Amino acid sequence: MMTNRIPWEERPDGCKDVMWRYSENPIIGRYHIPTSNSIFNSAVVPFGDGFAGVFRCDNKAVQMNIFAGFSKDGINWDIDHEPIQMQAGNTQMIDSDYKYDPRVTFIDDRYWITWCNGYHGPTIGIAYTFDFKEFFQCENAFLPFNRNGVLFPEKINGKYCMLSRPSDNGHTPFGDIYLSYSPDMKYWGEHRCVMKVTPFEDSAWQCTKIGAGAVPIKTKDGWLIFYHGVINTCNGFRYSMGAALLDLEQPDKVLYRSQPYLLAPAEIYELAGDVPNVVFPCAALNDDEKVVVYYGAADTVVGVAFGYIDEIIQFIKDNSL
Amino acid sequence: MMTNRIPWEERPDGCKDVMWRYSENPIIGRYHIPTSNSIFNSAVVPFGDGFAGVFRCDNKAVQMNIFAGFSKDGINWDIDHEPIQMQAGNTQMIDSDYKYDPRVTFIDDRYWITWCNGYHGPTIGIAYTFDFKEFFQCENAFLPFNRNGVLFPEKINGKYCMLSRPSDNGHTPFGDIYLSYSPDMKYWGEHRCVMKVTPFEDSAWQCTKIGAGAVPIKTKDGWLIFYHGVINTCNGFRYSMGAALLDLEQPDKVLYRSQPYLLAPAEIYELAGDVPNVVFPCAALNDDEKVVVYYGAADTVVGVAFGYIDEIIQFIKDNSL
Amino acid sequence: MMTNRIPWEERPDGCKDVMWRYSENPIIGRYHIPTSNSIFNSAVVPFGDGFAGVFRCDNKAVQMNIFAGFSKDGINWDIDHEPIQMQAGNTQMIDSDYKYDPRVTFIDDRYWITWCNGYHGPTIGIAYTFDFKEFFQCENAFLPFNRNGVLFPEKINGKYCMLSRPSDNGHTPFGDIYLSYSPDMKYWGEHRCVMKVTPFEDSAWQCTKIGAGAVPIKTKDGWLIFYHGVINTCNGFRYSMGAALLDLEQPDKVLYRSQPYLLAPAEIYELAGDVPNVVFPCAALNDDEKVVVYYGAADTVVGVAFGYIDEIIQFIKDNSL
Amino acid sequence: MMTNRIPWEERPDGCKDVMWRYSENPIIGRYHIPTSNSIFNSAVVPFGDGFAGVFRCDNKAVQMNIFAGFSKDGINWDIDHEPIQMQAGNTQMIDSDYKYDPRVTFIDDRYWITWCNGYHGPTIGIAYTFDFKEFFQCENAFLPFNRNGVLFPEKINGKYCMLSRPSDNGHTPFGDIYLSYSPDMKYWGEHRCVMKVTPFEDSAWQCTKIGAGAVPIKTKDGWLIFYHGVINTCNGFRYSMGAALLDLEQPDKVLYRSQPYLLAPAEIYELAGDVPNVVFPCAALNDDEKVVVYYGAADTVVGVAFGYIDEIIQFIKDNSL
Amino acid sequence: MMTNRIPWEERPDGCKDVMWRYSENPIIGRYHIPTSNSIFNSAVVPFGDGFAGVFRCDNKAVQMNIFAGFSKDGINWDIDHEPIQMQAGNTQMIDSDYKYDPRVTFIDDRYWITWCNGYHGPTIGIAYTFDFKEFFQCENAFLPFNRNGVLFPEKINGKYCMLSRPSDNGHTPFGDIYLSYSPDMKYWGEHRCVMKVTPFEDSAWQCTKIGAGAVPIKTKDGWLIFYHGVINTCNGFRYSMGAALLDLEQPDKVLYRSQPYLLAPAEIYELAGDVPNVVFPCAALNDDEKVVVYYGAADTVVGVAFGYIDEIIQFIKDNSL
Amino acid sequence: MMTNRIPWEERPDGCKDVMWRYSENPIIGRYHIPTSNSIFNSAVVPFGDGFAGVFRCDNKAVQMNIFAGFSKDGINWDIDHEPIQMQAGNTQMIDSDYKYDPRVTFIDDRYWITWCNGYHGPTIGIAYTFDFKEFFQCENAFLPFNRNGVLFPEKINGKYCMLSRPSDNGHTPFGDIYLSYSPDMKYWGEHRCVMKVTPFEDSAWQCTKIGAGAVPIKTKDGWLIFYHGVINTCNGFRYSMGAALLDLEQPDKVLYRSQPYLLAPAEIYELAGDVPNVVFPCAALNDDEKVVVYYGAADTVVGVAFGYIDEIIQFIKDNSL
Repeated sequence: MMTNRIPWEERPDGCKDVMWRYSENPIIGRYHIPTSNSIFNSAVVPFGDGFAGVFRCDNKAVQMNIFAGFSKDGINWDIDHEPIQMQAGNTQMIDSDYKYDPRVTFIDDRYWITWCNGYHGPTIGIAYTFDFKEFFQCENAFLPFNRNGVLFPEKINGKYCMLSRPSDNGHTPFGDIYLSYSPDMKYWGEHRCVMKVTPFEDSAWQCTKIGAGAVPIKTKDGWLIFYHGVINTCNGFRYSMGAALLDLEQPDKVLYRSQPYLLAPAEIYELAGDVPNVVFPCAALNDDEKVVVYYGAADTVVGVAFGYIDEIIQFIKDNSL
Repeated sequence: MMTNRIPWEERPDGCKDVMWRYSENPIIGRYHIPTSNSIFNSAVVPFGDGFAGVFRCDNKAVQMNIFAGFSKDGINWDIDHEPIQMQAGNTQMIDSDYKYDPRVTFIDDRYWITWCNGYHGPTIGIAYTFDFKEFFQCENAFLPFNRNGVLFPEKINGKYCMLSRPSDNGHTPFGDIYLSYSPDMKYWGEHRCVMKVTPFEDSAWQCTKIGAGAVPIKTKDGWLIFYHGVINTCNGFRYSMGAALLDLEQPDKVLYRSQPYLLAPAEIYELAGDVPNVVFPCAALNDDEKVVVYYGAADTVVGVAFGYIDEIIQFIKDNSL
Repeated sequence: MMTNRIPWEERPDGCKDVMWRYSENPIIGRYHIPTSNSIFNSAVVPFGDGFAGVFRCDNKAVQMNIFAGFSKDGINWDIDHEPIQMQAGNTQMIDSDYKYDPRVTFIDDRYWITWCNGYHGPTIGIAYTFDFKEFFQCENAFLPFNRNGVLFPEKINGKYCMLSRPSDNGHTPFGDIYLSYSPDMKYWGEHRCVMKVTPFEDSAWQCTKIGAGAVPIKTKDGWLIFYHGVINTCNGFRYSMGAALLDLEQPDKVLYRSQPYLLAPAEIYELAGDVPNVVFPCAALNDDEKVVVYYGAADTVVGVAFGYIDEIIQFIKDNSL
Repeated sequence: MMTNRIPWEERPDGCKDVMWRYSENPIIGRYHIPTSNSIFNSAVVPFGDGFAGVFRCDNKAVQMNIFAGFSKDGINWDIDHEPIQMQAGNTQMIDSDYKYDPRVTFIDDRYWITWCNGYHGPTIGIAYTFDFKEFFQCENAFLPFNRNGVLFPEKINGKYCMLSRPSDNGHTPFGDIYLSYSPDMKYWGEHRCVMKVTPFEDSAWQCTKIGAGAVPIKTKDGWLIFYHGVINTCNGFRYSMGAALLDLEQPDKVLYRSQPYLLAPAEIYELAGDVPNVVFPCAALNDDEKVVVYYGAADTVVGVAFGYIDEIIQFIKDNSL
Repeated sequence: MMTNRIPWEERPDGCKDVMWRYSENPIIGRYHIPTSNSIFNSAVVPFGDGFAGVFRCDNKAVQMNIFAGFSKDGINWDIDHEPIQMQAGNTQMIDSDYKYDPRVTFIDDRYWITWCNGYHGPTIGIAYTFDFKEFFQCENAFLPFNRNGVLFPEKINGKYCMLSRPSDNGHTPFGDIYLSYSPDMKYWGEHRCVMKVTPFEDSAWQCTKIGAGAVPIKTKDGWLIFYHGVINTCNGFRYSMGAALLDLEQPDKVLYRSQPYLLAPAEIYELAGDVPNVVFPCAALNDDEKVVVYYGAADTVVGVAFGYIDEIIQFIKDNSL
Repeated sequence: MMTNRIPWEERPDGCKDVMWRYSENPIIGRYHIPTSNSIFNSAVVPFGDGFAGVFRCDNKAVQMNIFAGFSKDGINWDIDHEPIQMQAGNTQMIDSDYKYDPRVTFIDDRYWITWCNGYHGPTIGIAYTFDFKEFFQCENAFLPFNRNGVLFPEKINGKYCMLSRPSDNGHTPFGDIYLSYSPDMKYWGEHRCVMKVTPFEDSAWQCTKIGAGAVPIKTKDGWLIFYHGVINTCNGFRYSMGAALLDLEQPDKVLYRSQPYLLAPAEIYELAGDVPNVVFPCAALNDDEKVVVYYGAADTVVGVAFGYIDEIIQFIKDNSL
């Protein structure tokens, strides 16, 4: 398969970090569409000869919804002014009080979207599309309360696989990453614990809660996942980004997991905004060598960060918990 | 099918309540087996020419586990001194940090047990047995965090159905009853909200959280369920028992639901104990006319209460929310 | 004025307490009327040749409402089976989500009832009656959130006076007693702080919150009030009863206030019930020598306690904070 | 009546918002007077041929007090270096532990100031002045705990009217807007609920608490009020500004209320400061066409925002809850 | 040394517990002295030809203080009506806002009392007496916040040793047992962690906090300590009693520790009282074979429980964590 | 003794503050060493012909540790890339889960370092060095939980003296400053309360918790201490800096204490960062006239502020609580 050319900017001189920010961040501002209060935790995929995406745009009533968007270069985006209208997929029950934090991946013949779906509290919504124009909503994957549902980009052992983070119905002060399987995108089971928070002494940035971010990237060294970790400071939650490698055959088995973060709030658009101190990855584009991670910043805007896959994998191995 | 003779005691003179307690409550004391600290939220079913059951016996380290037991009359019980040892059922993954609050029901050819299973927090464990000697543990139904999983006694529309109460990982201060379906007791989906807590002004005893209790009883008026409701007083949670009727075909549809409770803590063994002020139903035996509900009292002992099914159904209809 | 004969039982042999319980407590059980779950914090007054009262009866849906009742001897009560139906008094706005914890007093030509009235949260409801059959509801005294509104039995300096306890909208963990004036039972102002909680070291039983109980009794030494005090133990709130003397002319001025409690939960009907460890005075009957205090016990039943007024006043003076 | 020329700056090119910020915000910095740590939630009115105001200046001990100030143009302010000294108005009881968040309005013959007054906790203080030199403090309007008391600029049905927000004694996590009446600025009653917080799904920026901001502006379409709304994010409260129209005759009746906010924290002086993410309106100046709203930013400085009244009213109607 | 005859009652028929209650519990009622509201967590030692003790008697203002008492048989106690008056011991600074939960032990030539002393919050007070008439208060052992300070009955490695439980200033929801040394009862150091709470799954009755109870008893198998453990139920803390063996030379080394409790609230005087569900050991008397533990019940009264030392030690070894 | 030339910059024109910031703040950035996520609360002393220091550098796993550093001018620092490795000092027990917030002072013949040491929770670690290359760790001063241990730079009355702030094991919402003495840096006692938080009305910036900052500076007017104070805003803790004078002979006696703060978060590097709104002094350099305070800003970087000692003392006296 031809890979579209992903956005890219080389590592700045003098920078020794394994990943680095785009010099023109944020790539999407809070008022990018007329109704928006903020546009942040959002997901993108290759599509046609360019890219498509599903974007979290909170409006000025601070209602949360997801919107389709398109781009030629992955940096400049046309985002629809109206939220996605769902049609019935594998169910007629497509209730949704709100939608946020989408992820997108292509499996077999279509694009699957997962998001945090409001059904008597947050749970994982699922939909598919062929063209980012018509979307077909399926059964929610789980009972409430759950967030950060992320599908693997292919079936494993003949079943769909999803990472998720069981939650409560508020600003959950805990959270680990689990894996679940489904034969049909309708019924889910074989729930396995994958990664738990770390002891404060070992890696404090991920000691309060963790959640899957981008769709896993298949590498010869395992599934590469970018995830967020949270520390509870005396002035609130701080969200940073780490990475891990999961076993290709048994993806509930963690091979390596970064003790240091790869990206943490430090730029002013990450430190100040509707929710200060948030770096929250939701998607990644990659070719054979390079990866660009899309992340929400301060729950307000979208930024991207770059890295070489080999360097990242080596970094995780060298700095593993 | 012949129905075993259920325990029974007539309504006391002068009593006008729709349900009434057994005069010799509690039927099982806290030290009923040598290691036990308390024996309470437990489940029973007809078995052979008598009855069998699965009992929550916390030991004197206050470790929670479930034990099999047998009775000729449903009142006097022989409970095993060792907890149930699970064998692998439809999975090899039968981890369990703790087991509590069992329910039991017979479907098709075997007895199914559900309970609150400790797997990185509370979730719903499932097992089956043919003889209450060998037990086969299956996949957990859901991701954590969940409690009060109760199976319907038959498939509906060709699928297994389970009521449950999504929770958090502590003394959950919220909780509604949901319904989920499974084609195979392994993968679960089609999650529907069934009943939510009530506004304080409407029915305060069930305004904080509610959870399914006994296995639903099929009646011509619908599925009769006994459930617990909780009010958060200034001195802690108070658990009472109500009842509802669910639609026979669409069991996520509530037909009637009792505004008043049917049983609430008032006797000293319900008011004082390891957790004061708890009436917590987990099972019911019935014949065509009568029902006897088994309930945990004060998280310490087991009591039973009696009623006529017709009267109970009429009461729910006459006093419905 | 002729005083009706108040209920009375002499101090038991060997008892040295300033107040003592009735030997046949509780005088009103939780199921005293057919619908009731509990009957507790309630108020009584002399009426005709006997007594009348307003009773808090929570029903079995745990809805809170107030009911009229009558008694010849103050001990044996006939309580109406239907709650009081209010008519419009000095306003048409007589909304009420719930009613609880009534107090009653006679001023000039009628009986005034105050209670905790649900109007977007708890506030102080006011009504009057001439006959305990027809009741006329007036404007709420205050904005939410407030509880324990108690009127003085006569105007002071030409104005109605009310004690109350500003609160929040939950299980308020703080609370002091204030005094407010009104020229007309409609508009209230001149708000004064009367009594605050005590430092833990000085008198711990009243260190968390306090609230007025019975209608003040006029004595030559000042207004005698019985009030409740609360300590927050590791297992919840414990409510006890104290007493104080307020200045006759300036009732926001505390002359004496009991450091020890006069009555605290010790009997089983006070220690166990819907809310354990509650003694909550709401009314008192008195003649020239004697007083009988009516109190709710464990938020479940009604008890009474006796004392000699002179002894009580002397006790307060001798043991004042 | 001649209207003084209010401050004004036209809508920037390309801006489509219904209200927009002054390009030289903040107009008052945190160290504007020698002792100040911050100057923010403050109120202004036309006065003489210019403007006067009452300013919340917290000093460097972070003691909260209110100060008088004067301006020719409404932008450049001379603020007194000493706080307002109150004299006795309609009472001798003018206790005040602290004063903050003033509002000012002219009624009949004098300027009335309301503020959050510390009297055993926060309540609503009232004072009047004729000249912004001598101030006369009156009875507190309510019992504690209350904040954001805002008077209407004229009597309605012959009585003074005040909006307020009942609170608790901490960082209140709830709050609705109420209306109360007084015949004499001393006794208050006829308390009515006006506006409550919205469900999270409908308008999340105002789902935690709301409070009146500027003095209501009389328009042919109703009383125009600017108010603040709060959302509780995982990193704290975020304060935004909305607007509503109240019925001219019955001001407890909401005609229209904005679902989207009109102004929310987005500039760095609103996002960072002593309390990040606060836009808090306390006053407005208007002529027949235009309005300028004064708001506290990040609890640190004062900003202003402009708009056309007709556009604002149309916006509220078009975007009403 | 002659050992006084300790109180004793044989194990009841049929009882298989390692420790059992006295049939006439409670031995000291809540109103045992005229001023008392409750008498509970208290300590006793052999003294002369009988026994002496220091008793926690809360008065009816719920002020906490400690009182001396004497007994011939260890069951019937004469407790002073006035609290202990401290004189200056090794310091002039003998401030004390309150005193509670005493322990007593004899070292070398005198009796040492430790207790929870109110000095800007709870910390460990120390005093000595020769005769239980004159008491000499010393420097507090630690900075606040600390509770449950228990001295070893002899110096170890030439230094005084104290167990304690660092706390916070409220109803501390955590707590482990530490050991500290002092050369002179004035300066303390060499702080070592001894025992921590257990994982919920291992021994839930001691999973929230633990604290030393009786003075350690020297046995050939190690220092035998009785301690309390706490579980946080949904209705509050439940206090039970366990036991452990510490190394004779290195008492911060735990040799064995009971997984099951030895005594837990089950009798009505333990289940109901000022703080329900509390068994709290503070002292033990022993001879070569037998031990009697004194414990506070429900924070209201004093009970005792008996056991054979050899059996207890064997039980701990057989049931060790 | 020769005093090294301390860093200095004159008060800017127009500035009337008693202390002012360095124009090139922050002097140490968050990525100053390769592994660091942040470098903040740190301590410096004169050393040789320049300066040495101990720096808190959190790494990118957000593990907290302390590092040695050296500087010629006190502004430009070479910080070691590896954390300090401790050797055994007056004990073999040198456990440490983490180290943070160091202070340094020279007494007699060596440099003493104190810091917050993780030993089953935070407590005060102590070490000494002669050369900032070899460090010798001593017994922890106290039981957990404690933070902000600061030694006086000389013995007083023959004993070492330490200020500290007893805490709990989380984001402690309280905290006062205490003083403790030791004859030998091993055993500590004679604990005295020095300074408590202030009433909100008196000085709100220090009403939630306070803690010692820089090592006390001996002046003819008393020990000059710089300390931090915290206010709990609705959006979290805000840390500011004040100063006080303690009695030279009895350092638990406060002579004067600043009601206003001397420095509070106002610059962007203090307002935004890993923990917004933090100014946290840990060290000061001084000569006879001048002082430079080193403080952590936003838990991210290091800043300095200047002042004249005489002016500061006069300011404290003129503005004392």
